[in-house]
Amino acid sequence: MGLDGRYDEGNIFARILRGELPAARVFEDEHALAILDVFPQSRGHTLVLPRQPARNLLDIEPEALGALIQRVQRVARAVRDALQPDGLTISQFNGAAGGQSVFHLHFHVIPRWEGRPLGGHGQGGMAGPDELAQLADAIRARMG
Amino acid sequence: MGLDGRYDEGNIFARILRGELPAARVFEDEHALAILDVFPQSRGHTLVLPRQPARNLLDIEPEALGALIQRVQRVARAVRDALQPDGLTISQFNGAAGGQSVFHLHFHVIPRWEGRPLGGHGQGGMAGPDELAQLADAIRARMG
Repeated sequence: MGLDGRYDEGNIFARILRGELPAARVFEDEHALAILDVFPQSRGHTLVLPRQPARNLLDIEPEALGALIQRVQRVARAVRDALQPDGLTISQFNGAAGGQSVFHLHFHVIPRWEGRPLGGHGQGGMAGPDELAQLADAIRARMG
Repeated sequence: MGLDGRYDEGNIFARILRGELPAARVFEDEHALAILDVFPQSRGHTLVLPRQPARNLLDIEPEALGALIQRVQRVARAVRDALQPDGLTISQFNGAAGGQSVFHLHFHVIPRWEGRPLGGHGQGGMAGPDELAQLADAIRARMG
């Protein structure tokens, strides 16, 4: 799956956006949805997706992208306030060679702690639903 | 260097923005400057910085952040058109624990090719000025 191609309405994030699949929801408005990653690279690893169907950074409308990154900022601040990490890594992957595995544009917000290198995606296994629900509550409470 | 703290006017990107240090410039307007990374993680590794002094994603004004990510998109498209990579990785680091080494907000636009894992920052050594100038020309020509 390269950088080009048609948007696939059946991708897992499209299904979550339509409410067909569950997710630990942290934030949502008319522009974006933020959910916890079920294969977190660290505790509190959150994904921010636009409602607009876009495969990647290249094919989203600039205005929708501007609104999206402002939600990423708000989520990043809430993650900081909830979990007090030492740092935050933001990443966004385009195309399989770029690290993308779900072909609906998303930004990763990954809390970092000193002395803890980042695990691979899914390396630490799947997070439990109770843990995710608790984390989602804590972050949501700081969304202001 | 954590997530909080004062903006240091002496950081290397502030000095490049003020024209005190040279850089291979790919794009600039009133909101942002894009330059090639001198320690590229892959060929064409480009950095996009806001003119506004901000340490990281958390302390930039939302409007300036929206304008910045739209420049990241334009640069990413130009990098794609100039180098035709298989993918693009976007990353943005906050705090030393988050991977940040220069404390002026910046987005990395990193072209990716299948079968070539990403090198560490500076792992491949410093890029030569002629190579950077040539790459900057090629990307700038696609900025439209």
